[in-house]
Amino acid sequence: MTVRGLSLDELTAAVAARSAGRLHAEVDGAGSVRITGFAPLAAAGLGDLSFLVNPRYRSDAKVSRAGAIVLTPADRDALRASGQCPPLIVTDEPYAWYAYAVQALRPPNDLVAGVAPSADIGTGAIIDSSARIDAHASIGAGATVGARAWVGAGAVLGAGAALGEGARLHPRAVVLDGCRVGRRSIVHSGAVIGADGFGFAPLDGQWIKIPQVGNVVIGDDVEIGANTTIDRGSMDDTVIEDGAKLDNQIQVAHNCVIGAHTAIAGCVGMAGSTRIGRHCQIGGAAMFAGHLVVADHCVIGGGTLVARSIETPGHYTGSFPMMKNGEWQRVAATLRQLDALRDRVRRLEAGGGGDQA
Amino acid sequence: MTVRGLSLDELTAAVAARSAGRLHAEVDGAGSVRITGFAPLAAAGLGDLSFLVNPRYRSDAKVSRAGAIVLTPADRDALRASGQCPPLIVTDEPYAWYAYAVQALRPPNDLVAGVAPSADIGTGAIIDSSARIDAHASIGAGATVGARAWVGAGAVLGAGAALGEGARLHPRAVVLDGCRVGRRSIVHSGAVIGADGFGFAPLDGQWIKIPQVGNVVIGDDVEIGANTTIDRGSMDDTVIEDGAKLDNQIQVAHNCVIGAHTAIAGCVGMAGSTRIGRHCQIGGAAMFAGHLVVADHCVIGGGTLVARSIETPGHYTGSFPMMKNGEWQRVAATLRQLDALRDRVRRLEAGGGGDQA
Amino acid sequence: MTVRGLSLDELTAAVAARSAGRLHAEVDGAGSVRITGFAPLAAAGLGDLSFLVNPRYRSDAKVSRAGAIVLTPADRDALRASGQCPPLIVTDEPYAWYAYAVQALRPPNDLVAGVAPSADIGTGAIIDSSARIDAHASIGAGATVGARAWVGAGAVLGAGAALGEGARLHPRAVVLDGCRVGRRSIVHSGAVIGADGFGFAPLDGQWIKIPQVGNVVIGDDVEIGANTTIDRGSMDDTVIEDGAKLDNQIQVAHNCVIGAHTAIAGCVGMAGSTRIGRHCQIGGAAMFAGHLVVADHCVIGGGTLVARSIETPGHYTGSFPMMKNGEWQRVAATLRQLDALRDRVRRLEAGGGGDQA
Repeated sequence: MTVRGLSLDELTAAVAARSAGRLHAEVDGAGSVRITGFAPLAAAGLGDLSFLVNPRYRSDAKVSRAGAIVLTPADRDALRASGQCPPLIVTDEPYAWYAYAVQALRPPNDLVAGVAPSADIGTGAIIDSSARIDAHASIGAGATVGARAWVGAGAVLGAGAALGEGARLHPRAVVLDGCRVGRRSIVHSGAVIGADGFGFAPLDGQWIKIPQVGNVVIGDDVEIGANTTIDRGSMDDTVIEDGAKLDNQIQVAHNCVIGAHTAIAGCVGMAGSTRIGRHCQIGGAAMFAGHLVVADHCVIGGGTLVARSIETPGHYTGSFPMMKNGEWQRVAATLRQLDALRDRVRRLEAGGGGDQA
Repeated sequence: MTVRGLSLDELTAAVAARSAGRLHAEVDGAGSVRITGFAPLAAAGLGDLSFLVNPRYRSDAKVSRAGAIVLTPADRDALRASGQCPPLIVTDEPYAWYAYAVQALRPPNDLVAGVAPSADIGTGAIIDSSARIDAHASIGAGATVGARAWVGAGAVLGAGAALGEGARLHPRAVVLDGCRVGRRSIVHSGAVIGADGFGFAPLDGQWIKIPQVGNVVIGDDVEIGANTTIDRGSMDDTVIEDGAKLDNQIQVAHNCVIGAHTAIAGCVGMAGSTRIGRHCQIGGAAMFAGHLVVADHCVIGGGTLVARSIETPGHYTGSFPMMKNGEWQRVAATLRQLDALRDRVRRLEAGGGGDQA
Repeated sequence: MTVRGLSLDELTAAVAARSAGRLHAEVDGAGSVRITGFAPLAAAGLGDLSFLVNPRYRSDAKVSRAGAIVLTPADRDALRASGQCPPLIVTDEPYAWYAYAVQALRPPNDLVAGVAPSADIGTGAIIDSSARIDAHASIGAGATVGARAWVGAGAVLGAGAALGEGARLHPRAVVLDGCRVGRRSIVHSGAVIGADGFGFAPLDGQWIKIPQVGNVVIGDDVEIGANTTIDRGSMDDTVIEDGAKLDNQIQVAHNCVIGAHTAIAGCVGMAGSTRIGRHCQIGGAAMFAGHLVVADHCVIGGGTLVARSIETPGHYTGSFPMMKNGEWQRVAATLRQLDALRDRVRRLEAGGGGDQA
């Protein structure tokens, strides 16, 4: 896609500024080359910025027609050695540099402030004059919408809920009564923040509903993916700390706490009162039983069922390996007898003969 | 959070009434203490009601500053023995008692009856005069909305669909054409009731769509979680019986039947024509192949893949245990050879030497 | 349910026409029998069409009161041999024949063309005069809606997005800016097409957002289930090829490609840049790690975690078998020691005695 252009020199300055000076890069080639778009190495053409981070794409880099490539010093040396190449932007953090470059070249659309005539605004709601409320949105009584915040088409902000400065509810996102979304946080379409937690007490074979009176509190710079659900707390609040990133179709039950800067891939589920530490990385479709604590800096493999607390940072996994179906049928049948197999080995070790086949 | 207050004596009477006399409690302490909110044992303060059910929170109870604690006679004795404590509400069913107490202290907001001007009401729809229809809701032609029912902002009730007395569609919930929701049932935001079942017939490498002509029929006192989907039947209806409780992000395919008073945790999936019995408890992310029958009173562990019918009530599980990643890699590699390992044990039992390493 | 009626002879002609002559059938019985509805074999009555495909329903067929049954020549012979039976429609492809018969008897509601007064239409949007836009729908600036297309109540078509001829967005479906939906494709309620991919670069323990500048491109005759999410590409597009069918609650991450005529059951998740071949069948809740390639004509069992590419067509599985909970506890405990167990077998094979219990 085409964007407004910046020269490599302008882009390097823009990234340094956006990263508050944390990212420096050296342009190895003509700094006047103009970047107007982005593309993967294999598809890039004149004017496109591309990046090399994953070693499996090195061969693509060698033949890329990109306008410029962001990469590490080591990859620069390898690429230069292999022959002619486009201008290179050399940095220790090429992926983060690329992220800021895209932000610089393609900032979110400027908001035209204002409230669409078809939006429904409840009594006593306070909407900053620089905010934007789109068609068919519903803002509940007493809700607040901060400066430069955006409520997309048909999104809902419940009664007494709060949307922070620069935060964004994409079309059809729902933030229910009393919940709070921090500054610059993004809630994608179809996400539901603050539905009732799943709280019922058993009595005589029936389930008695426990009204859920907590809220959901989402910190600053959080991102919540499409169709993800985060339930309100039963008594306390459910909390998503600053900088956490949640992908699509994640289920966070009542009273969970997700630590700051933790990233959670799609389809993860979390039962009630689970506390995930800070700086964790949770693979897709991992599932957490309730009332657990997971330490900071844990990495959980995709599809893992976490049924107990994890007290030590580390990389944890639990998934059945994929096999050809016939092989799997044999292995699965044997697995059912694994306990018996161990007993047979014990008997052999004790010097006994086999009595089973 | 703060609610309108009741004294412990008033609360005890209210719970007895709400439970139709099934729940009795004795106030051990000053029955005049006023309850104005709820909090977990560790966070509770003056005026907060708290409960003790899970033994792991006994130590919290000993130092809790709660206004009152609901607990069993055994826990009361233990707590009294450990020293001074707040007024105690003693009952054999503390969790159910707590549930009714919260209901008594915090009934759902009174509905102000009426139809929002921006709601879209189809021809021939019949809306009870005590019902409430919020902004941007859509009520299809010929649909019916019962007494004291609520259709939240932007929710959809399709043509010919029916919403029972006191039932609630939360904001953005969707109940499509011809589907029925029973009395007092709740459909949370983002849930979709009555989308087409996944029905296609293969022909020459393509898929021919089978129009789905059944409906979804939801009984009384059912709860359907946020972003849960329940597909319409292909010919027959898909049925959710009275009192069943479904958490968020559950997928129920066409022609399933979920038995009365069964509780299903989040992220569960169910392929077509599966019949779950009554009074079952299904753990999160359990998955059911199609055309199965599960007996009444079954408990299914989280993450279990149910690939065959279950004829006997019991507790069933099937999930790979979590390990440190390095350990998992070794175990998973060995698992692939499990069949061969069993054969090696057989050879040893038969007196043969080993020929493999 | 009751539909406008057709005689068996009329129906046979209609199916031949709809299938472009691919499906022929012989009516074994009175061709003048009138079909006015559909029902499963066990529930069918006078006027209902039913079908027999799955052998487990043969006994139902023998006592069915259906108006007519579609089946194979072999099943016809078996049924005739068992005694009196209703008119039979005999074809080599009974399920596909049934699919077309339902289409013929119950075509989708005729669209009454027009734009609802409460719909929000952006500047420069082009809406074909034969299309229908329902209440509270939002059509973004510069979007296009093709002939006979339908945008349901509260659905969103973003700026510059395109909805092809005869395509349908069900109520509350969301197709975001710049995404394209092909001809006759169907997007069910709550689906979100084109939310941001989950793209962040790590820097100093935080996550820097990478703006996602690709789109989603959906081919012709595709079906996307309720609450399914398909993210926009990071640079390139995410692509769903012609004739692919996706069930509910599926998550497709940025830059995935799903091949033509592949069918994917509910709750499947797919990490970024995964490429699924054509004519694959993916079981429910299967999960795919990113940057994989799956060959054409693969069958993946439900619940399988696909962590590596699959280069050879075949049937692949990886799921833990379900057990009684006590049995599972023993097997799971032993599984953790599987590596050690193999070592013990090795020692026995080497002639060594056992030193472990």
